[in-house]
Amino acid sequence: MTDDAVGLDDVVAAADRIRDHIHRTPVMTSAGLDRLSGASLFFKCENLQRTGVFKARGACNAVFGLPEEGIVNGVATHSSGNHAQALSYAARRREIEAIVVMPRDAPQCKKAAVIGYGGRIVECAPGNTSRERMLAQVVEESGAHVVHPYDDHRVIAGQGTCVLELLDQCVKLDAIIAPVGGGGLVSGACAVVAALSPEIAVYGAEPAQADDAHRSLRQGRIVRNENPGTIADGLRVNLMALTWRHVSRYVRDILLVEEAQIIRSMYLVWQRMKLVIEPSSAVPVAAVLAHRDRFRGKRVGIVLTGGNLDFDALPPSLPGGDG
Amino acid sequence: MTDDAVGLDDVVAAADRIRDHIHRTPVMTSAGLDRLSGASLFFKCENLQRTGVFKARGACNAVFGLPEEGIVNGVATHSSGNHAQALSYAARRREIEAIVVMPRDAPQCKKAAVIGYGGRIVECAPGNTSRERMLAQVVEESGAHVVHPYDDHRVIAGQGTCVLELLDQCVKLDAIIAPVGGGGLVSGACAVVAALSPEIAVYGAEPAQADDAHRSLRQGRIVRNENPGTIADGLRVNLMALTWRHVSRYVRDILLVEEAQIIRSMYLVWQRMKLVIEPSSAVPVAAVLAHRDRFRGKRVGIVLTGGNLDFDALPPSLPGGDG
Repeated sequence: MTDDAVGLDDVVAAADRIRDHIHRTPVMTSAGLDRLSGASLFFKCENLQRTGVFKARGACNAVFGLPEEGIVNGVATHSSGNHAQALSYAARRREIEAIVVMPRDAPQCKKAAVIGYGGRIVECAPGNTSRERMLAQVVEESGAHVVHPYDDHRVIAGQGTCVLELLDQCVKLDAIIAPVGGGGLVSGACAVVAALSPEIAVYGAEPAQADDAHRSLRQGRIVRNENPGTIADGLRVNLMALTWRHVSRYVRDILLVEEAQIIRSMYLVWQRMKLVIEPSSAVPVAAVLAHRDRFRGKRVGIVLTGGNLDFDALPPSLPGGDG
Repeated sequence: MTDDAVGLDDVVAAADRIRDHIHRTPVMTSAGLDRLSGASLFFKCENLQRTGVFKARGACNAVFGLPEEGIVNGVATHSSGNHAQALSYAARRREIEAIVVMPRDAPQCKKAAVIGYGGRIVECAPGNTSRERMLAQVVEESGAHVVHPYDDHRVIAGQGTCVLELLDQCVKLDAIIAPVGGGGLVSGACAVVAALSPEIAVYGAEPAQADDAHRSLRQGRIVRNENPGTIADGLRVNLMALTWRHVSRYVRDILLVEEAQIIRSMYLVWQRMKLVIEPSSAVPVAAVLAHRDRFRGKRVGIVLTGGNLDFDALPPSLPGGDG
């Protein structure tokens, strides 16, 4: 990696900075899923991470990397999902304020989670434009420091610590598959693997219903999702300039999976591994099952990114979950 | 423990015998559940055990403890639940046959699990009498060796290995809570704790809808459930002579919980710990939350016994899940 891409040094520094605030999550295996995939799978369990998702890593790195004079007015972001919780958590650990701009119609359970981590919610009308406008207004009034959910060096370096741990926990991986939404996690993976183990192929996995990274890689430029309809709510966002730089240079391929495969894979992990994962986490599992020929006999690291979901709105399980 | 009760030596021998066939499961903690309970909780994750349940321990101890001449005709049992899978698993590990008598109307998913572990199913009419009659017939025809799900020294000693590990993994526990169905697990816990750490109080936890152990302890004799209606399907059975001997002598108390508390506690563990547990496993969690005063400030070991359940028939989650 060159230019202003995130480097191994940044990730190592992040690991040191966030050590007291995150879990070193376990890597689990499953004889049943190995049989189904024909590969040896190593699951990095970020669903067991603080706040239930890997995003605690990037948020903590950004918040704890700020100089004293940068934090007096707190931090702010707009997010209706996991980054909002993660930033609220990181801010509370540093005893500063987190302000989260959330659409008025965001699920009550997500708002409750942010409040539970001590974040302050500022509501806005639904839609990206009004979110961004409200965040600008909040920043102007409060002087808070904005932490973007993924297109940010500090966040990418923080997410990379997850793959740094994985390489320490598993030897001789042939491939790593991470889900791709905005690309923060896979960018962090690229930074680590390029420097430490370039023989490992880094793959992104994406819902076919939100295939911006897949199309971007093929067209050689950032292409956006028009109206992503996927159940994997963490993956509806688009690559941006910084994450695209990492993805375009280093990711081997972006593997697509269908919605039914995502749902089946989610319940398969619940059933076989007894781990609650959210739909976004099931996307790389679905990818390794849908692309068996590519991974047969290989040692594959899979990041189970998170486990936050609403048990009142579960999709029906589908027949054929074992296949 | 005296007479023919299971002793520490039996449990230690079992641990040695089954070592290659079971997982040493992790102990997990949850800051959120500690806050809700006011205690320090240590969860022994037997839902991550092979076959998804602690019963692999007892079944393996029974099967691998049999002399060569005792195994030529395989093993048999009647069960519609976790013991059927566990015995099938143990038999396959020893390369002998397992015959499981199951009621014709048992859920398809349970039959599939037994077959998946290599067990052979013999169907019978629903009801205890026809189960027992069919098992007697199977044994007469096949010469198979019967392994009872809980009223068996070898099974109790095997289940006790779970608590032997827990004591090795957590220091200075004040109490251990295990769910009580037939009492195999709690009997094994008694054998270990009585010998190694008699200062630890062993509690059973039971659904109020299947409170045979609770009433037995109060009346000083085995009382049976008439028609247990609990969602905790692993706990509908009754104490028997051998397990009653352990429970009556050593268990501090049997704590009762309501159905709504079981369901809330199940989803609470799913949500906060990202662990799939079955309703029976939620019973001791519900107990520590429902009996806060008794456990406030204490260090409490809780056995999460298993994670096998049917995702097509989940109970609706209930409001007030946070305690």
